[in-house]
Parts: sequence; structure tokens; C-alpha cells
Amino acid sequence: MGVRELGLPERAADPGALPGRVTIWEVGARDGLQNEKTVVPVEVKAEFLDRLARAGLTTLEATSFVHPKWVPQLADAEDLLARLPRHDGVRYPVLVPNERGLDRALAAGVTHIAVFASATETFARRNLNSDLDAQFSLFEPVITRARAAGVDVRGYVSMCFGDPWEGVVAPEQVVSVGRRLRDLGCTQLSLGDTIGVATASSVERLLDTFTSGGVPVGELAVHFHDTYGQALANTLAALRRGVTTVDSSAGGLGGCPYAGSATGNLATEDLVWLLDGLGIAHGVDLDALVDTSVWLAGHLGRPSPSRVVRALAAR
Amino acid sequence: MGVRELGLPERAADPGALPGRVTIWEVGARDGLQNEKTVVPVEVKAEFLDRLARAGLTTLEATSFVHPKWVPQLADAEDLLARLPRHDGVRYPVLVPNERGLDRALAAGVTHIAVFASATETFARRNLNSDLDAQFSLFEPVITRARAAGVDVRGYVSMCFGDPWEGVVAPEQVVSVGRRLRDLGCTQLSLGDTIGVATASSVERLLDTFTSGGVPVGELAVHFHDTYGQALANTLAALRRGVTTVDSSAGGLGGCPYAGSATGNLATEDLVWLLDGLGIAHGVDLDALVDTSVWLAGHLGRPSPSRVVRALAAR
Repeated sequence: MGVRELGLPERAADPGALPGRVTIWEVGARDGLQNEKTVVPVEVKAEFLDRLARAGLTTLEATSFVHPKWVPQLADAEDLLARLPRHDGVRYPVLVPNERGLDRALAAGVTHIAVFASATETFARRNLNSDLDAQFSLFEPVITRARAAGVDVRGYVSMCFGDPWEGVVAPEQVVSVGRRLRDLGCTQLSLGDTIGVATASSVERLLDTFTSGGVPVGELAVHFHDTYGQALANTLAALRRGVTTVDSSAGGLGGCPYAGSATGNLATEDLVWLLDGLGIAHGVDLDALVDTSVWLAGHLGRPSPSRVVRALAAR
Repeated sequence: MGVRELGLPERAADPGALPGRVTIWEVGARDGLQNEKTVVPVEVKAEFLDRLARAGLTTLEATSFVHPKWVPQLADAEDLLARLPRHDGVRYPVLVPNERGLDRALAAGVTHIAVFASATETFARRNLNSDLDAQFSLFEPVITRARAAGVDVRGYVSMCFGDPWEGVVAPEQVVSVGRRLRDLGCTQLSLGDTIGVATASSVERLLDTFTSGGVPVGELAVHFHDTYGQALANTLAALRRGVTTVDSSAGGLGGCPYAGSATGNLATEDLVWLLDGLGIAHGVDLDALVDTSVWLAGHLGRPSPSRVVRALAAR
């Protein structure tokens, strides 16, 4: 009798088995550009997303319906979405912080949204002007109304490994936040290492705490920042635990590596290089992606921090 | 009956088990500085090595006795060694390309040397002016005389995963080169990804080919370059295979990340961050190491490419 007949997850047979295919959740246009000092013109953003779609990326987080006062870089959300060309099999999720944001997103015809929760008390207070417990009453009407409108909802859980005020975050606390988002209707949880302090062991520990708590690994995505150079090693650890959705940003957008702190996302190109080496399908044309990152770097006025982009662009 | 009684390697009991302690083989002063455009004054090199030793690094590859015509950056080898302060438990291996180099090394009183072999035909011809088979007759007298003088010999195997002319390199070919070095008297093999093309899977495959070919994992070190951002993920894969010696360079010295191609070594600071996260002992004081890399970056006139250095230096 095989593992499937026993009803066990396939992973149990071989704790180091890798998935055959991974979905790259490209966050460059949202998580990347919202942290860039340069405000990128809307037509450049539209071309950026179109190029990424033509390079084979199928999940492109396009923008955020946060109040323009807080993130002026993304104040053009409606305009951008109206300009995006449709490609078969490509989706453009958007971040939605509250019901006002949801109204705007629904009016713009979006089909996938994401909410942004905190795993820690302090970050909930600082980022959401709420608290760890109260954040769910913010999200509840957003998720409920979105689902009723046929819109899929991802739940970001930020500060999953540590935060600047509380230090190390207990996996059980993260799982508790994640499960509440799931109970409200989120179909996927993206586990964010917002300040880049995770290492492979803490990644494994958190994923194991989720799965032993009844959340299937197929509902979990990982979202790493490369602040301490650990993003790709953390991704490898997550893949070996069976994770099949990985967040990254084209060219490693999102930090400012030449101005002191490097807080960029994992670069999509470096991720693609790893997946190719591991024999994991992803559907992305690396050369087209590198061309896109080099082209965008020209608009941002600085080279990409992605090692793959730098190495291939130098050829 | 336990695994030990069966005479199996401990790793067989748990393919994901991590070593309790790792030796960091710090190559910044040799592999790093030989690739820097700036020629660093000998007194700065001596202070660099002294600072690294005081930060807790115990294996500091100091320089190379290659002909100064080929590597002018290291022409001060004798002068540098004479200036190095002795610390208990600290060794300063040097690279030795030939018998003339060995004469110089022995005259300088070194106790540990390394020879530099190629895993590919083309690189043997280009780098050693030899060929894959003939390189061993170059090394044989060097290794034999060194061992007779009580000097320990490490064997570098370069281009272990791919080279720019021959593409992918077969693990069996690398193992064949490594075994011949070992038969000649090398006590450790450092498996080098000279052009940075390895990924976790190819690392595992090579290590497995060595161990199934009778070379104990305790005699293997790994030497990764971060050209495509894979160095730390590759290190994680090697640690999970039981490797206990990892090469790295303080601050990621050795490439020129702001001039197109990034060919630097794995940064020691990023490695230390990983080891700390995995609970693996290493003996290094990270703050002292970061201070040293920031100090040296001032002499080189450019910031360190290490993500940990940039993040911690910005605090």
C-alpha cells in the first residue's frame, strides 16, 4: 500500500522531496515599487507588468489600494489597472487594507486581493493602528465581502520570524494569526519575513507548526527579504518542506542596497536560477526577465541588486 | 543496535542532520585580495588577518606563493607572513603552485599549504599550463616534500560544477581528480564552484558521488562563489550532507559587484548568520568581523557586497 492510499501527505514519504512545480508570486510592482524612493510613472509600471507577464509570470501583484497619503508611489492604482493588458492565465492581485480599499478594488474589477496582517502586537499597532486581536475585525468585512463577490483572498502574515520591537516571534503565535485569517476566508497565507531575520531552521519550524496545526502546506506561501542574505537558503528549506508558492520581486526590487540597509525582496531571477537547478518547473523565461529588470533599473537610476541580473547583464 | 555499531556514517541515520560545529576556512586575504583591483599595502593585510584572528577565525589562508608576475597583489607573501602575529590555535595556510613556491613557503616557516587543481581539461591548460592528467606530476613533488617536512596539504579542486568552456562537469570526473590528490597526500579537498553555477541539487550530487566513492565527508570542504546568488543555499545543502568545513571570505571579498559581474566568494558574515540560525558552533564574533570588513572596505574604496555587513553597518 502506497502513501497515497494511506491518505498521508506525499511529503511524509521523503522529508527532502521537492515539488515538481512552483508558482512564483511576483510582488515587484507592489512590494517592490512601494519601497523605492523613485515614483515610477504609470505607463512604465504598466509596461513593467506586461513585460513580466510576457516573460511567463502568471501571478503579478500589481498595486495596493492603500490611501495615497501613506504610499504615494501607488496612488495611481486605478489608472494602472485600467492600462494592464489581459493575458490568458495571468492574474493581477492587489493589496487591500480596508473596506474603502475594497470598494476601489471591486470598482476596478479585480479578481484577487490580499490583506496584510501582523503576527506581532507592536507591528499591528504601528502599521495597522490596531492591535493583534482587533486586526481581524478590520479584515472580516473585507474578506467576507470579497468572497461574496467571487474574489479570492490571500492573507499576508508579516513579521513571522522576528520584529524590531519584540524580537523572536513564537511560531504558535504566527499559526494562531494565520488560522484566524483562514477561518475568515483566506485561501492562501503568505508567511512574511518582513525584516529578513529568518534562517532555514526557523523556516522549517514555522512550516512544521502550521502543518501539525492542520494547515496544509499547499495553502502556504513564503515571502522572504534578503536583508541578511538568507532569502534563497530559506526558500530552499521551504521547498524541501513542500511549499509550492514563493513570493519574489523582479530584480530584487524593494530595497536600497546601495544606501546602507538592504531590505529588498528575494530576487525573482535568483529564485528562477535555483528552481532551474533543482529541476522544478516555473514557466519563466529567464532572459526575458533579466532584460525587464535591466530595463526597469534604467528607470530607477540604479543597478539591480539581483546577483543573476548583474552576472547575466554583464555578459 | 545503533548506527555507530553498524559502522555506518552517522549521517545515514538522518539525511537532514546538521553538524554541531563548522570550521570556517577564511580565504579573504588570499582568494579575496588576489582578485581585487586595488593592491593593498602589506601592513593593512597584516592588520586584516590579525583582526580576523581576534574575531575568532582559526583558519586564515594568508597568501599565495605564486610568481609575482601572475598575481602582483600577493607579491609581498614573505613580508606578510613575517608580520603575522601568532595566536593560539590559529593557522595561516598558504597557496603553493609549484616546487619553487614550496621552497619559498618552507623558508617562511609555513605549516599548512594548499595546491590548486582543476577538474576540467580546459582550465588545467589555461590556468596551470598543463593538462588534466599532467597536473598531478606538478603536484606530486610539492605534496610529497611538504608532507615529509611535516606540512599539511589541502587540495583545491576548481571548476567542480561547470566551467566556461566545457559546460557542466560530471561529478565522476571531479571525484577522480579529488581521489588522485588524496592518494598523493592531500588531507582535505576543497570543492570549488569557481564560476558560481552550482545549485543545491548539484552540490548534493557531487558530495554523494564522493562519499559513495569512499571519500569521507569529513575530508571535504566546500568553496562557493556567489555569482548567481546561490552560495548560501549551496552551503545549506552541503551542511545537510554533513560537510564541516566551509570556505568564505570576510565581507564577500573577491569580486567587483559594482562593475558588472559579481564573482565574490560567499561572505563569511552571511555564513555566520546562517550558522547561528542553525545552531551550529563556529567561534566567530560577528560584530568584530563586521567591523573588520567595514574597516577593510574603507581601504578598498568600496562597500562590502555582504548583505549582513551592509545591514549591520547601517545600524
